[in-house]
Amino acid sequence: MDAYITLDIGGTNIRCAVFLANEIEPFRYKKIRTHQAGNTAIENIKKVIRSTWPNGHLVRGISATAPGSIDVKKGIVILAPNIPGWKNIELRDTLVKEFSVEVFINNDARLAALGEWKHGAGKGHENLLYFTISTGLGGGAIVHNQLLEGSRGIGTEMGHITLVDDGPVCGCGKHGHLEALSSGTGIENFVKHKIQDGAKTILEEGTTSKKIAEAAVQGDQLAIDAFERAAFYLGKGIANYLHIFNPSCLIFGGGVSQSGDLLFKPFERSLREYVLNKEYLNGLEVKMAMLGDNAGLIGALEYLKLNL
Amino acid sequence: MDAYITLDIGGTNIRCAVFLANEIEPFRYKKIRTHQAGNTAIENIKKVIRSTWPNGHLVRGISATAPGSIDVKKGIVILAPNIPGWKNIELRDTLVKEFSVEVFINNDARLAALGEWKHGAGKGHENLLYFTISTGLGGGAIVHNQLLEGSRGIGTEMGHITLVDDGPVCGCGKHGHLEALSSGTGIENFVKHKIQDGAKTILEEGTTSKKIAEAAVQGDQLAIDAFERAAFYLGKGIANYLHIFNPSCLIFGGGVSQSGDLLFKPFERSLREYVLNKEYLNGLEVKMAMLGDNAGLIGALEYLKLNL
Repeated sequence: MDAYITLDIGGTNIRCAVFLANEIEPFRYKKIRTHQAGNTAIENIKKVIRSTWPNGHLVRGISATAPGSIDVKKGIVILAPNIPGWKNIELRDTLVKEFSVEVFINNDARLAALGEWKHGAGKGHENLLYFTISTGLGGGAIVHNQLLEGSRGIGTEMGHITLVDDGPVCGCGKHGHLEALSSGTGIENFVKHKIQDGAKTILEEGTTSKKIAEAAVQGDQLAIDAFERAAFYLGKGIANYLHIFNPSCLIFGGGVSQSGDLLFKPFERSLREYVLNKEYLNGLEVKMAMLGDNAGLIGALEYLKLNL
Repeated sequence: MDAYITLDIGGTNIRCAVFLANEIEPFRYKKIRTHQAGNTAIENIKKVIRSTWPNGHLVRGISATAPGSIDVKKGIVILAPNIPGWKNIELRDTLVKEFSVEVFINNDARLAALGEWKHGAGKGHENLLYFTISTGLGGGAIVHNQLLEGSRGIGTEMGHITLVDDGPVCGCGKHGHLEALSSGTGIENFVKHKIQDGAKTILEEGTTSKKIAEAAVQGDQLAIDAFERAAFYLGKGIANYLHIFNPSCLIFGGGVSQSGDLLFKPFERSLREYVLNKEYLNGLEVKMAMLGDNAGLIGALEYLKLNL
């Protein structure tokens, strides 16, 4: 039977799944730590593929997601900041040499968008945007039933648009990007600076966005302000994206998106305030991601099938 | 022989062309003033179509561009600020009733992008962005060989992304949009405010962006500053667009784009400063539009053929 191997490579874990024929439930699944047993990430990737290899089936190819900027055409990870040493890594060629099958690699958030579109919250939409909000802020776009990649596959860096001239510094080093304002890190940095400025709060300096969300639920004003601000810029940024893409569906994934009304009430207020006109909101569905941790693996599977 | 009627509807003129078979040189062409003879724009549109109608040929359809927000699916001009009274105009149905052929309408800048892609500066690129900078700032996008329209056809409002929180007011009423910063109007407003604040210049209050460009060439510091500022934000805004779309080609049209180095030297400096990394500039072609005033008519022709 035809088999497809997919990988979700992260800074902490590498997850590997084998899918058979038209299934979207894995036939085999294994998770290992990215730097397990003192190996490099590459060594562990090879190891987990070997240990899940579906002997007796026809392996059609391997498809991997990685966090960061990827030259999809050349199969090179340009930069994955969360994986030490991952700069200009020729991941595709390395795996082709080792396993003698076709290999595709792509950005994790982008393939999660593909997964959610094909099998999750975005089914049936011709134009949708997917945002994953956690430590960073990434995403993907389906445009007229195609996955937007760009000429070299480094498009849909959705967190890296400037909203505030000379605003707070972003993970990428630039200033005032959506990611710097509305990601978990953006929320944490806002709270940290306010505490340093003497703001009253039950929170401690250096706390996580999850703890900030809990404090907000308990009524802590600084925590509430932090989420309102993140949501305000998220609405402002996504208004831009509505003007550019005019999608019929927005999908949110990632830890910070689990904050419910704390994030989405002020987000929707801001979105309504900043869209050019209400036509952009007419019929727009705002949904939570449905595939959870498997969005990347399922997206990688679809990406492999698209490219074979 | 198959014939295609295309219209470029503007606030000042309506231009109408008839194309035969696979030609991109018009078989017939006529330009009239939008409100000629005291008629409404709609009456003049009907009139110019009637007077160019290619009797003896098979008219496959009519395709019109209009300036503004258009519901492409319903064929309604939601709002065209430059044409008095054009709000929720059922242009498609009106023309279908009158001429009994298929009718398509779309945004002028978007169809110019399509024209430049098929027959102009963008030929052969799978991913490109087109910007027209004049009174306003509009554009279009080709994504993996498809024209980006969005679910209702109101996408690619390229001028309406926020770059400066609470920045100068835009034609749309919002603040800090790319159009408010880098369009001809943005340049004019900057100069006007600086003159009101007492800046030294050879320019008079209320002057045009064309006159400002001329003054800059003569060494007027305020005029130079005005273009540098517009170019700075254009670079910053287009850095966003590179992160989103990763195109292999940027095309510039419209009057302000005729300013040469005055605009494009500081634009390129700003672009280099604000892109995430140089991979986005690797192989990127920056070109001037080639089809001039005919981009819309030729784009409308291609759009008609795509949709028939």
